[in-house]
Amino acid sequence: MTIANTVKITGENYIGFQKSSNGTITFKTHNPATKVDNTTIFYEACDQEIEDALSLAQKAFPFYKETSAKQRANFLRTIAEEIENLGETLINMYCNETGLSKNRAHGEKARTLLQLRLFADVVEEYSWIEACIETSIPERKPIPKPDIRKMNIPIGPVVVFGASNFPLAYSTAGGDTASALAAGCPVIVKSHPMHSGTGTLIASAIVTAAKKTNMPNGVFSNLNSKGIAVGQKLVQHPATCGVGFTGSITGGRALLDIAAKRDIPIPVFAEMGSINPVVLLPEALKTRGEELAVSFANSITTGSGQFCTKPGLLLAIDDAALQLFLKKLKREIIAVEPSCMLHPKIKGAFEKNREKIVEQKHVSSITATNHCDDNYGQPSIASITATNFLKNQRFQEEVFGPFSLVVICKDKNQIAAVLQSLQGQLTGTIIGNNSEIKEYKNIITVLSSIVGRLIFNGVPTGVEVCNAMVHGGPYPASTDSRFTAVGANSIKRWVRPFSFQNWPDSLLPVALQNENTLKIKRLVNNQFTNSKI
Amino acid sequence: MTIANTVKITGENYIGFQKSSNGTITFKTHNPATKVDNTTIFYEACDQEIEDALSLAQKAFPFYKETSAKQRANFLRTIAEEIENLGETLINMYCNETGLSKNRAHGEKARTLLQLRLFADVVEEYSWIEACIETSIPERKPIPKPDIRKMNIPIGPVVVFGASNFPLAYSTAGGDTASALAAGCPVIVKSHPMHSGTGTLIASAIVTAAKKTNMPNGVFSNLNSKGIAVGQKLVQHPATCGVGFTGSITGGRALLDIAAKRDIPIPVFAEMGSINPVVLLPEALKTRGEELAVSFANSITTGSGQFCTKPGLLLAIDDAALQLFLKKLKREIIAVEPSCMLHPKIKGAFEKNREKIVEQKHVSSITATNHCDDNYGQPSIASITATNFLKNQRFQEEVFGPFSLVVICKDKNQIAAVLQSLQGQLTGTIIGNNSEIKEYKNIITVLSSIVGRLIFNGVPTGVEVCNAMVHGGPYPASTDSRFTAVGANSIKRWVRPFSFQNWPDSLLPVALQNENTLKIKRLVNNQFTNSKI
Repeated sequence: MTIANTVKITGENYIGFQKSSNGTITFKTHNPATKVDNTTIFYEACDQEIEDALSLAQKAFPFYKETSAKQRANFLRTIAEEIENLGETLINMYCNETGLSKNRAHGEKARTLLQLRLFADVVEEYSWIEACIETSIPERKPIPKPDIRKMNIPIGPVVVFGASNFPLAYSTAGGDTASALAAGCPVIVKSHPMHSGTGTLIASAIVTAAKKTNMPNGVFSNLNSKGIAVGQKLVQHPATCGVGFTGSITGGRALLDIAAKRDIPIPVFAEMGSINPVVLLPEALKTRGEELAVSFANSITTGSGQFCTKPGLLLAIDDAALQLFLKKLKREIIAVEPSCMLHPKIKGAFEKNREKIVEQKHVSSITATNHCDDNYGQPSIASITATNFLKNQRFQEEVFGPFSLVVICKDKNQIAAVLQSLQGQLTGTIIGNNSEIKEYKNIITVLSSIVGRLIFNGVPTGVEVCNAMVHGGPYPASTDSRFTAVGANSIKRWVRPFSFQNWPDSLLPVALQNENTLKIKRLVNNQFTNSKI
Repeated sequence: MTIANTVKITGENYIGFQKSSNGTITFKTHNPATKVDNTTIFYEACDQEIEDALSLAQKAFPFYKETSAKQRANFLRTIAEEIENLGETLINMYCNETGLSKNRAHGEKARTLLQLRLFADVVEEYSWIEACIETSIPERKPIPKPDIRKMNIPIGPVVVFGASNFPLAYSTAGGDTASALAAGCPVIVKSHPMHSGTGTLIASAIVTAAKKTNMPNGVFSNLNSKGIAVGQKLVQHPATCGVGFTGSITGGRALLDIAAKRDIPIPVFAEMGSINPVVLLPEALKTRGEELAVSFANSITTGSGQFCTKPGLLLAIDDAALQLFLKKLKREIIAVEPSCMLHPKIKGAFEKNREKIVEQKHVSSITATNHCDDNYGQPSIASITATNFLKNQRFQEEVFGPFSLVVICKDKNQIAAVLQSLQGQLTGTIIGNNSEIKEYKNIITVLSSIVGRLIFNGVPTGVEVCNAMVHGGPYPASTDSRFTAVGANSIKRWVRPFSFQNWPDSLLPVALQNENTLKIKRLVNNQFTNSKI
């Protein structure tokens, strides 16, 4: 189906299948490109609506977790279809609430659909449950070995926070929601205030899909919020069993702290951004400095620099090649056409945070001076010596927008020293020629210790959705480096292992029964097999 | 080798390979059986020693994590050998510091050796690294697919807290230490003050093994402590990357709270005990009530009830069969010979906590009145109606020792209500005949939602060390139900996934290189294979 759905946005919350607007706090979203507010009045979820959403989720959980893989996969695929059915309505709303291009809207929508369908496949493929069976050995001495069977089960209702910079792929039906629904966890989305209309449209698609596929009411809710209170209450609520968040370090840490203070602490997976250090080695700079300057100017400014994987820190050893590279990079950066940022607040924060860096002593910076619209991010870069970088923690702070800081190092030891001084990062990149790379083993070791993903001769922007992806990393890149936010394995955030001991075969979940009617791969007495027992 | 090692216990800490006793706080361990202090004077680790141990661990980490699977397996197996070499010295020390029998000492030692050797096998088998490869698709549109390869890597130095009730299997070289060392994480043990001599002996075995197998200094340290300060400082220390703990809810929660307040929060896996509810169904009680009474009297009192999986709560529907069972259970319980508890403090806490239950209104209790030595735990049980149980949260509190509370329910709805009122538990048990079990599906559902392991017609004591085991559960059974403390998968607590993107083959870890010289099973483009690429 490609006929556009005619969802009318009326600013209400979805409390399960029910539209509701009982609150008194209202707000509008803003179009940063036209500089006018969009027309819909949104109602922030009130306490009773929060309570009702969680209560419905809690009631839905025992039923939803018992749905078969086929049923859940069908639900996820139907969500994707219903999102497709939103057609241009969705694309227009997305653009009106973000200032991003139609091209980007289509690209992000495609990624969102891909993720939903990937998790449908993941659920049906079953390896995420890690089925494991050890059959009994009654004759074992000194005591008999019991029959023990293990699989992963969902943890319970999960609260997902929409991300400002990915209104589709990391928001209402984004990776966190798709993975949690796939695992069997009901989801309550705290919609991002900057794109509540986009969120409502997606929520309507999810609710339609849930009804069509006979999912229990409460499997999904979508709550509007103007400020931070709704999110805080959701994390504090006793029915919440896990939290997924993409956003700032301040925001993510605040939620982590709330979760840690609960009577029953719950896991919070917050992906909080990063400055994504890039080490440019001398030979590479010498042989392909110009090409690298083009490539990095592009990576720094794509999407107005509003990616958590934007390369925010470039490190290189001072030599003639670096000076040429810098010159070229500056030229490339200021030649980039400024583009609209997500919101005036984000534009304001970008300028303020960039200012905090460039106003420091010994920083040399360049920003294009050509005319730039109010809400547009003017691309710029700055440079500083490693010696000065190491004196001030401020230089490590993420500047969310089209900006990057070049750190000029004396030698490879200084590169290592700068890397050693950094906090945890999502990614680290090495740009080098094959001939020189072995000389920098120590740098690779140091870089590895602080990142979740290591890239060779590429840019960190672009996070492939696949099994091998790690999107996460040591704190503060994420709150728990033992999980990834992207790819099939992100489902592991929302499951816990569960054992059955000497449990009657007929009462076991189908996946653990002797017959193995699902024909799934299981670890049986230490051997992987698709066979029955 | 079976010749006893002649380790002289001098009360020092092991700061890496170095013995050290610079502190001023000293203490002795106590023999609860003879009621006299053991002779060795132990020196609590001072701040400098804590600092030195962490600093050594941090320095050892980059080297230790690069050791091959073969090297780490060899280290673990050598630790097992060196523990065997301690011979009777270890057994005598164990008994002198715990009041437990030689039989128990030998049993727990065997479990400890089994765990060390299991993790040696686990490391060499490689599936714990979850190697995953997605090869590039340069021709993919709109953008080429990069080559991405993922594996698990160790998180860094791990602090392990020795458990009072398992001086061997859950202490110095117990499951936490074995799994962390297997993962490639250096370990700093905070030795339990009640069995510091046992801890020192085991530490000496680990240090000897580390030296023999050329492990870096700092891969292991053992710190004595009289109070809680050493543990707190270890968890606060910036070099600590993870914590393993087995003990009380108060202790575990305190560590979790400290970890959550750090600048860089770290994962704490605390296994904190449980009352392990058991539901006895009517037909089973009718047809085999006597036999069940014998079996549960035994399970409640084994090891003087000092197991985290002791059945502390028995639930059944009131009928003639239950009354007969109760009568028999009382007879069996008071007939059990009291045995020595681990320490006068533990005996004291047992009596105090049991008193808090039995002194409540409407509780009927029975304790043997025969003479019982000071430090011995007098087995007892109590009973209460479900109606009264539900009125007072106090009844949920674990009584660590040979005691269990029977909850008399009106009907199956009341069983469900009691289960629903419970906190998270390590285990839940259903005792039932096959003919009746299907009538109680709702009870099974409710029980499943609060436990990590479900047992049918067995006792919860006895935690099989195997792949399918889950020892953990919803809070407060453990601080993170997504992991297990026992079995091969407990290694997952100490690793994080890591991705390489377009990384040169020769610089990849061997496990991810094209050639697959290790011949390990890898997920390559969505298919498991042992082949090369």
